[in-house]
Amino acid sequence: MVQIVRGTSRDIRVANRSEVLRHILAESPVSRQRVAAGTGLSLATVSNLIGELLDAGILVEVGFEDSSGGRPRGLVSVDPAGGVLIGVDVAETYVHVEVFDAALTPLASAEEQLHPEENRPQQVVAHIVSGVRTALGSGATAARRVLGAGISVPGQVDRGGGVSVFAPNWNWHDVPLRGLLAESLTMPLYLDNPLRAAVVAELWFGAGRGREDVVVLNLGTGVGAGLAFRGSLYRGATNSAGEWGHTTLVLDGRPCHCGGRGCVETYVGAPGIMQHLRELDPDSPMLHLGDQTATIDALARGVRSGDPVAAKVIGETARYLGVAIANLINLANPEAIVLSSWVAARFGEPLLDEVRAVVARHALRHPLAASDITLSGIIGDPVSLGAATLALEGFLSAVGTAPAVRIALR
Amino acid sequence: MVQIVRGTSRDIRVANRSEVLRHILAESPVSRQRVAAGTGLSLATVSNLIGELLDAGILVEVGFEDSSGGRPRGLVSVDPAGGVLIGVDVAETYVHVEVFDAALTPLASAEEQLHPEENRPQQVVAHIVSGVRTALGSGATAARRVLGAGISVPGQVDRGGGVSVFAPNWNWHDVPLRGLLAESLTMPLYLDNPLRAAVVAELWFGAGRGREDVVVLNLGTGVGAGLAFRGSLYRGATNSAGEWGHTTLVLDGRPCHCGGRGCVETYVGAPGIMQHLRELDPDSPMLHLGDQTATIDALARGVRSGDPVAAKVIGETARYLGVAIANLINLANPEAIVLSSWVAARFGEPLLDEVRAVVARHALRHPLAASDITLSGIIGDPVSLGAATLALEGFLSAVGTAPAVRIALR
Repeated sequence: MVQIVRGTSRDIRVANRSEVLRHILAESPVSRQRVAAGTGLSLATVSNLIGELLDAGILVEVGFEDSSGGRPRGLVSVDPAGGVLIGVDVAETYVHVEVFDAALTPLASAEEQLHPEENRPQQVVAHIVSGVRTALGSGATAARRVLGAGISVPGQVDRGGGVSVFAPNWNWHDVPLRGLLAESLTMPLYLDNPLRAAVVAELWFGAGRGREDVVVLNLGTGVGAGLAFRGSLYRGATNSAGEWGHTTLVLDGRPCHCGGRGCVETYVGAPGIMQHLRELDPDSPMLHLGDQTATIDALARGVRSGDPVAAKVIGETARYLGVAIANLINLANPEAIVLSSWVAARFGEPLLDEVRAVVARHALRHPLAASDITLSGIIGDPVSLGAATLALEGFLSAVGTAPAVRIALR
Repeated sequence: MVQIVRGTSRDIRVANRSEVLRHILAESPVSRQRVAAGTGLSLATVSNLIGELLDAGILVEVGFEDSSGGRPRGLVSVDPAGGVLIGVDVAETYVHVEVFDAALTPLASAEEQLHPEENRPQQVVAHIVSGVRTALGSGATAARRVLGAGISVPGQVDRGGGVSVFAPNWNWHDVPLRGLLAESLTMPLYLDNPLRAAVVAELWFGAGRGREDVVVLNLGTGVGAGLAFRGSLYRGATNSAGEWGHTTLVLDGRPCHCGGRGCVETYVGAPGIMQHLRELDPDSPMLHLGDQTATIDALARGVRSGDPVAAKVIGETARYLGVAIANLINLANPEAIVLSSWVAARFGEPLLDEVRAVVARHALRHPLAASDITLSGIIGDPVSLGAATLALEGFLSAVGTAPAVRIALR
């Protein structure tokens, strides 16, 4: 399949470059002929794009294909030594930094805890910078050129301007995050949010590969949907598409921090799940007030060991989540719905099974049959991986226009 | 803007042909140079595509542009005599047939009433055929070649197979409608549903022109959303995207004929609005049991003459509709939301004003600011116009591969 976007011939060139690289990553080492067959692009176009990527130093020639007669075909592969990519997942309670080689294989990571009161922009920026320095300073990544860093922050983001437009949990408005980070970090910086990062990770490396219409649900403290239509990320008019957590499921229901009532997030976000538990059994030993992670962990253990209260909480969560997923299926008719982020990872199959049963009762038969509901199969943190992939896409769009940065820290 | 779709070079060619024609329709008569500037395509590509459309007989050369020195530039225009297009809107209570010239100017129409018991496929097919014959038989359209007919039927449609997969109001399952129609109609037939037809009409001729991300809400007996993302119709994995009427707004709310509860349609479809009236004033003279049209008409007159019950019904409808629209804004971040179909047309501004106020209270600030909510400005029946436009798109995709049909009836 060819990745083509509406736009100028330059946009098409960048999209094709990205599609060619995606194909090489998946099949490496691979001949130009196989890439052409797999992408639907002409051999001339593929050879041209691969030439650019060889010049940019992120591909390498790796010998020739066995051939039964005829000219031997040269094979190319992503050059792991071509540079490193950084993915930063900034969440409410932590900053996770991961360093990858150009083939998106993880090399090193660092994690910084964010305490609830550490929510001023300068404090968060200091943790990001410190995490990046720690991860880059390790032996595996030293002295390699840095192709770029993707930074995922919660909330609504102006990518072009590098601004956190609105982060509800911290009450940030129009924080010029990229500018603040650029005072300490000199590699190209790409700002976006976890919904975009997670769906890009699934498109390149997960359940979205080879699929056209995909919804990735981030289930954490907040919840939201990353959307991909016709094989590429859908951002909406102003990069704020996917606020599924703030769609109304229960008119006049639970109050939400967004100011609304009955939002999906208030029933299936971690605090909403804690509220189900509190309503079912206020004295439950699984309830760790003020500690979402500990409570979700206890519930996950409980449901696996047959605790009836834990099972009821999962059932109640699935009842809301399943109806909200059925809404997405009826509205968007996607091929795949992927449950991602830490709540989905911790609850796993027991939640998935109940959700599938609820969805089957609420979605229309025809789009339901087309939709595959799965847990994310990505190992590690999909948001860091996706943020690094967004940085790779940024690097690809700049190929031929700007030199890569070799000295990344100052 | 260039209209490019993911796919083969043939798909791109068809999409570009469609974009060139859309541009010529809007600016007719127009030079190749202006089309190239307006679409972003090269002059060579535009000249080539216009050559094909001239050969296909739907464009015509119409002289030269005044030019201050230099070579005079040839002007082209859509040839109204190039053929006719038929748009058929099959609804629960009527079959509306409209005949257009190749520039989508209406030439003739016919309407057949459908009685509630006339819901067997052969009965509906007979009304479509009879309507098409009446409309084509009028003097204005006689003896012109028929480029194609678009047929919009409610429910879920398999376009490729020409099958009505599921029409809930008639309980149709897998009805081979195109095959049944082809026994009497020999022009190329394009089957789709009113959600697709309405959004295509807005993209070509209405509020969607020049916009990327557009949602058209069909408010009638049933309700649904036509979706356009990145400037073109979004169908979903199996052409059933847009079933917004069957998304849950009130968990465990009013029962819906789809089997669910609390669906948007049960609150803002015409029967749902009648129920608001019945709950507010069961003895209201505006209530015409069993006659949706008469009741909606009476409410529309009532609200304009200051009737307090009518105002309350509109307010109650807007309360649900506004929250359901806020959900779409938060999820899809569109540039425009267009209220279409007969309930929207009859209630008009009074409903729009109340809906805007509700949306402003429920949508997130950032996507709300990017979203324009309007009534459809299309004169006449947008679904017939859109169905005819789908037939034009079908004709365009076949240019160069198949001869047009000159004898349309047998």
